[in-house]
Amino acid sequence: MIAKTPKTPYYAVIFTTVRSEIDEGYVEMAERMLDLARSQKGFLGEESVRNELGITISYWESLDDIRLWRENSEHKIAQRLGKERWYESYKLRVAKVERDSEFGL
Amino acid sequence: MIAKTPKTPYYAVIFTTVRSEIDEGYVEMAERMLDLARSQKGFLGEESVRNELGITISYWESLDDIRLWRENSEHKIAQRLGKERWYESYKLRVAKVERDSEFGL
Repeated sequence: MIAKTPKTPYYAVIFTTVRSEIDEGYVEMAERMLDLARSQKGFLGEESVRNELGITISYWESLDDIRLWRENSEHKIAQRLGKERWYESYKLRVAKVERDSEFGL
Repeated sequence: MIAKTPKTPYYAVIFTTVRSEIDEGYVEMAERMLDLARSQKGFLGEESVRNELGITISYWESLDDIRLWRENSEHKIAQRLGKERWYESYKLRVAKVERDSEFGL
């Protein structure tokens, strides 16, 4: 569940979300997007947790890989539907992981 | 609940954790550390979610502010107790947020 990521540097896309009350289609789309992300070039792993707030972090080799994922045509449809239906609000942050450490892994 | 952060760049400390079965003292310490972090120089905000996995992200103005927080003496005690008691495993990543976007905020 904790993503096994390579030696730094690599990139993180931090997606913090508040869901709307519309559930229809959400779980299926979230699973489909995760499968699709996993098949993208440069995908390194992901971590995801939700209670009232949701945080999903995907890790990537490069900014170019993140750009290609953002522009993926099926992902673009999901992004549009996300705003129309499933998310009340969100913040998306793209960050360069410069250093990491771990315990018990 | 979604942190209101300033214009990029700023820094994120991503703390992804798996808890042990020891609950004693955990909630109190987590709350105390959040209060203490909020009082630190350069603290910009935080987002935190837990179910089986926990993700806590704190945002900071600079790497120097993060270093001072890491070296805070009360925080250092909490770090030690975290390894001894409350965490089975964790990964900590320090990242520079280069770009962000939002919806509905």
